Amino acid sequence: MASSLAARTLARPSFEIAFAAPAFVRAMLAFESALAEAQAAEGLVEPAAAESIAAACRSLRVDADDLVAEAKRSATLAVPLVRVLRVAVGRTSAAHASQVHFGATSQDVLDTAMVLCLKPCLEEADRALDAAVRALARRAREHRATPMLGRTLMQPAVPITAGLKIGRWAAALAADRERLAEAAAAGLAVQLGGPVGDLAGMGGKGPAVRHRLALHLGLADAPAWHAHRNAWLDLLGRMAQVTATAGKIARDVALMAQPEVGEMLEAPPREGVGASSAMPHKRNPVGCVHAIAAATRMPGLLASAHAAAAGEHERALGGWQSESATVPEIAGALGSSLDFLETITASLVVNAERMKANVVAYGEEGHAASLEGACDELLAELAPYLT
Amino acid sequence: MASSLAARTLARPSFEIAFAAPAFVRAMLAFESALAEAQAAEGLVEPAAAESIAAACRSLRVDADDLVAEAKRSATLAVPLVRVLRVAVGRTSAAHASQVHFGATSQDVLDTAMVLCLKPCLEEADRALDAAVRALARRAREHRATPMLGRTLMQPAVPITAGLKIGRWAAALAADRERLAEAAAAGLAVQLGGPVGDLAGMGGKGPAVRHRLALHLGLADAPAWHAHRNAWLDLLGRMAQVTATAGKIARDVALMAQPEVGEMLEAPPREGVGASSAMPHKRNPVGCVHAIAAATRMPGLLASAHAAAAGEHERALGGWQSESATVPEIAGALGSSLDFLETITASLVVNAERMKANVVAYGEEGHAASLEGACDELLAELAPYLT
Amino acid sequence: MASSLAARTLARPSFEIAFAAPAFVRAMLAFESALAEAQAAEGLVEPAAAESIAAACRSLRVDADDLVAEAKRSATLAVPLVRVLRVAVGRTSAAHASQVHFGATSQDVLDTAMVLCLKPCLEEADRALDAAVRALARRAREHRATPMLGRTLMQPAVPITAGLKIGRWAAALAADRERLAEAAAAGLAVQLGGPVGDLAGMGGKGPAVRHRLALHLGLADAPAWHAHRNAWLDLLGRMAQVTATAGKIARDVALMAQPEVGEMLEAPPREGVGASSAMPHKRNPVGCVHAIAAATRMPGLLASAHAAAAGEHERALGGWQSESATVPEIAGALGSSLDFLETITASLVVNAERMKANVVAYGEEGHAASLEGACDELLAELAPYLT
Amino acid sequence: MASSLAARTLARPSFEIAFAAPAFVRAMLAFESALAEAQAAEGLVEPAAAESIAAACRSLRVDADDLVAEAKRSATLAVPLVRVLRVAVGRTSAAHASQVHFGATSQDVLDTAMVLCLKPCLEEADRALDAAVRALARRAREHRATPMLGRTLMQPAVPITAGLKIGRWAAALAADRERLAEAAAAGLAVQLGGPVGDLAGMGGKGPAVRHRLALHLGLADAPAWHAHRNAWLDLLGRMAQVTATAGKIARDVALMAQPEVGEMLEAPPREGVGASSAMPHKRNPVGCVHAIAAATRMPGLLASAHAAAAGEHERALGGWQSESATVPEIAGALGSSLDFLETITASLVVNAERMKANVVAYGEEGHAASLEGACDELLAELAPYLT
Repeated sequence: MASSLAARTLARPSFEIAFAAPAFVRAMLAFESALAEAQAAEGLVEPAAAESIAAACRSLRVDADDLVAEAKRSATLAVPLVRVLRVAVGRTSAAHASQVHFGATSQDVLDTAMVLCLKPCLEEADRALDAAVRALARRAREHRATPMLGRTLMQPAVPITAGLKIGRWAAALAADRERLAEAAAAGLAVQLGGPVGDLAGMGGKGPAVRHRLALHLGLADAPAWHAHRNAWLDLLGRMAQVTATAGKIARDVALMAQPEVGEMLEAPPREGVGASSAMPHKRNPVGCVHAIAAATRMPGLLASAHAAAAGEHERALGGWQSESATVPEIAGALGSSLDFLETITASLVVNAERMKANVVAYGEEGHAASLEGACDELLAELAPYLT
Repeated sequence: MASSLAARTLARPSFEIAFAAPAFVRAMLAFESALAEAQAAEGLVEPAAAESIAAACRSLRVDADDLVAEAKRSATLAVPLVRVLRVAVGRTSAAHASQVHFGATSQDVLDTAMVLCLKPCLEEADRALDAAVRALARRAREHRATPMLGRTLMQPAVPITAGLKIGRWAAALAADRERLAEAAAAGLAVQLGGPVGDLAGMGGKGPAVRHRLALHLGLADAPAWHAHRNAWLDLLGRMAQVTATAGKIARDVALMAQPEVGEMLEAPPREGVGASSAMPHKRNPVGCVHAIAAATRMPGLLASAHAAAAGEHERALGGWQSESATVPEIAGALGSSLDFLETITASLVVNAERMKANVVAYGEEGHAASLEGACDELLAELAPYLT
Repeated sequence: MASSLAARTLARPSFEIAFAAPAFVRAMLAFESALAEAQAAEGLVEPAAAESIAAACRSLRVDADDLVAEAKRSATLAVPLVRVLRVAVGRTSAAHASQVHFGATSQDVLDTAMVLCLKPCLEEADRALDAAVRALARRAREHRATPMLGRTLMQPAVPITAGLKIGRWAAALAADRERLAEAAAAGLAVQLGGPVGDLAGMGGKGPAVRHRLALHLGLADAPAWHAHRNAWLDLLGRMAQVTATAGKIARDVALMAQPEVGEMLEAPPREGVGASSAMPHKRNPVGCVHAIAAATRMPGLLASAHAAAAGEHERALGGWQSESATVPEIAGALGSSLDFLETITASLVVNAERMKANVVAYGEEGHAASLEGACDELLAELAPYLT
Repeated sequence: MASSLAARTLARPSFEIAFAAPAFVRAMLAFESALAEAQAAEGLVEPAAAESIAAACRSLRVDADDLVAEAKRSATLAVPLVRVLRVAVGRTSAAHASQVHFGATSQDVLDTAMVLCLKPCLEEADRALDAAVRALARRAREHRATPMLGRTLMQPAVPITAGLKIGRWAAALAADRERLAEAAAAGLAVQLGGPVGDLAGMGGKGPAVRHRLALHLGLADAPAWHAHRNAWLDLLGRMAQVTATAGKIARDVALMAQPEVGEMLEAPPREGVGASSAMPHKRNPVGCVHAIAAATRMPGLLASAHAAAAGEHERALGGWQSESATVPEIAGALGSSLDFLETITASLVVNAERMKANVVAYGEEGHAASLEGACDELLAELAPYLT
């Protein structure tokens, strides 16, 4: 579905662009072009044909609406895309046209295109997480001895330090980042299997073609994963973990931003940010809205992705195809989480005075333990981010 | 997120249009216009101001991308929309401009706009369900005595009739249709509460304004449901039920369309429909793909909608806002289900010969019960659809 | 799975009993006994056989562990249950034994038993909701003019009254109660269809037997719903709605119970309630834990229930069976919600002084609207609960 | 909730035992005992006290129902457990009793107990997966040249070999096994943080105590993960991946076990296995029921687990606690998946004759590619399992 205008309010623009129609068409054409080149290198396709195909892929202008309309008849974009590409190549040479999409199947181009769309989003996520961990680790160090209330079950417990709280956020994001990078290395894999996943149409050259294709596209090489998609599912799960952590941090910030608590703000008040259409005095925590909205819908989206996994035989009927709607939403929720993280990376306000006042007002008396220890343990762990 | 091009392959065009940017802007402006008129009728706003506002709503051209970009700062589309509307009205009269959005809040316009976008989809669903029930009831009557294998746990059980199987589909859809209509009557309600839901800004006239507004927009009247959204959630749940039934029917059809079984096809083979990019001989059950993809992702989407329900205080932080991404997806999945239902309404192929042959080949011997009874009971229930 | 001891901490004892092994066995035997009686009344079974069966059902002692162990071989409890029942009846008469479970199938007894287990839970829910609405409506009336901060996006907005806030909770629960009762009337239906749902084994007497069976068991009569389960799904969805509302109320209470806010407590502090294993001074909001834990897991459980809906042919392979694990969890989450509602029904503490103080400290100046109106509108709606 | 008797039909007995009340109590006592010993080794607790505590933990008999009943007042089992343990230790020495649970908090004992209950399940899963991969890899090798229909979108595509199909199952399970082991190594971690996670009550000795405790219990050491639970969530996600793969395999097997297809059975027909209560001739694919039921409910359960992640401050209100109900269900679904895998490991029937016949009857003519290549590529990958 076209997403609603209101939903777009929550979307990260670069992520929208990464999955928008032009990017998706470009990714499909990149697949077809690189496939022909890889096949030429392996002697399966004539070099001249691969050049024609690459040239056509560069110059082809596709009307996305037409493509979608035609794709409805086959339930796959690949059918009309391959058709128009063949027409374009055929203008040069009918023989070359017959080499388009050679030995490949719809799912090869669609899965690879989805992976190619997701890839820059994950690169961006990695950078944003790196920056967030660095910024939060510094804030943790700065506040390693700032006492504040620890709170459990939403009631005051014994004091902690602000450094410990912020340091935990940083450590959680650092671990998320590492897990995400690991899953991306495996899950951002080329898809190439042909009609039933065995690359039989390419003779014995299938794996070599796939390997070249992966290299060319900057993706991992892996046997066809048409119907066994857990490396991909694992990657989606780890995207969801980032969103969960960002949601948890946002919830904490929002609780502390209640004026009755007054201990943090996601950012200093600025004219026009967080404005209300009804109440001019309000400053809503807009970044927290993004992160919590993302964390609210992500578990269900991950359930949708998992539900698609138990597909039939060599290519699922409906399950696999449902991912095309679910994956961009998962990416979108991750994008919203990054927006929030960038806000606090740049602007988190820590009010040490209110923290101390709340310890005095609501804390248990007589707690005198030295509080810096646990924070220092975390800071040691975060040392690579504190250079 | 902008949905991926591949996802659009599964989307029902009329539903895409119903939630697209122009429709959403139109719905927001319809709210503002009707609000001013209702307030004028109640003496809260000058008639001339209401006219100016209505005129501006008719003529205003809004750039959706600008709106979204500005809305990110406040996490609500209403802020920039109200601003540009005030500017437009202010060209006529500054006094009139101050009456725009009088006493309302962001959530009022956004929730009402979402309801207005959904309304034509549900009207279309009602018509499609009516047609599907009629068509299937007729097919059930036609095949009331056609023996076929009953199958349980995917193994042959004792024979039933094709009429019973199809009649059950029809009865399930008829019940879904009734439940959906009932929930739509309650859930397609105007939202008007003002900043904290009490319409305090309209003096004692709030409920009267809301009533007029509901009438004007063709929606149900209800007290503000900013933070208690179960009538709405109930409606989303019933949309999910339609998708579940369509998914179940599609699964049955797909199982019977296996050539080894050969008892049904969603439609007769047609050139180009269900084509494969790799295997020219294939005829994929494209309608089943739509319905099963929708049924695969719907449970998770419904979970996302339910997760948004437990919001904080008078307006949630993040929960409510996440609906703006979830609801269009739920509608989109319903739309895919309707596409499938229309396919089988028009074209379902029943192969009575293969059914009989399979009973002989795989059925339990000696089963001699008269089989028409249960089908006739269903047909009696479906009588209103058999006129 | 046997639930963990920790999970049982959150469970409502009466609900645990309703779904425990003895109750489930009793429910299965109630089905078999009532079936034989209904069939005797319709002349399908000899009266003496029906009496033998009823007597055996009354006196049979079943070892649940043995039943489960044997049931694993067939993936259905009905096979061993029917076997032991036939053995028991056979001690009196071999002819009578052959009449046990006549014309029925596994799913008939299992679905009906599940419905019979759920029924007392829903009756209890109805009573608890009635009491909660009454209590909250009275508290709303009491505080109809008590000013407090309205809060949106977790920031102070303009004032409302405590009566409006509490009255909205009451109205939401009243609507939930009504929707739940409506869905229970349809969804608590007998299941009787025989092997493939057509009651063919009972000649033309099937519907009459089913009708008597329903009456006898206190359930609704409905055509076999083996594979089209949306009335049942609708009921589960409405249970989830109650949990969502209770979760929302609990979230509000927990936010107000923060000592920095101090406006409500779920109950007055009592020795030992809400104790911590580490911090003797703490008083955790235990009821809120129950309600929020339930609301946290319910959306996923509802997704699991919906995922089971798109089953194959006349009885699903795996989908339907998964409900046996999901439905008790949905009931369990509802039970936790009721525990919370009973806590606030009995004991909700409203601190009007702190509310007023927070309005002064954090509210917008100069808001002078009369605040009672919206509350009075709700109280009028809640009049039936205020007698 | 106590799970229903019907749900127990799907449960793996060893997993039920692993999470049953005695095991959970044992795990909690193991924590308390090992904690005291670790603290004694670090000089925080007197050695004699540690011995008294360990002795009491060994001899204590706890009534689980009493524990649960008392735990409802505090929403945590730890409060009554610590109380009865202190009473038991106090019979020897009041001074020793005060050392029980020293510096720890409820969540420490409950999370660690949950981890300890899960550990043997995962060890069992590892063994079952190893055996399944070995068995399937052998079957793949055996059938590396057995032609069968490849099927996409539930329609015949071009031929593959049975070896390729089975080999893919094996490779998917091998990858799942590896990912699961990796996540278990990180996620099966001790929980020890004290009231707010900083171990402040143990002076500077906290991390050393935690390290000893982890060693003693055979768990990973990790900083307190009270409120940042993604390593744990990652582990749950990977359990879900196993269930997804098993569900996919079961779906394939069930499709091939349709007599119209006739290419595989989960096991040879055996008296009493897969029996129906109504149809003596039937042999239901019982193992497939287990695996598909598990795969049906798992996505929702994973959503529930993810929903619990965004908890408040240093310990969540409700979110964390909901895991106590969700985790045993996730384990239970995994257990059902293993049951299925063990069935096919032991007994999968491959009917090469029917496979060939279906290729002839329904396959595309003229496909003459050598088919063994892709299978051989997988077998090379699976070499470690083929020794």
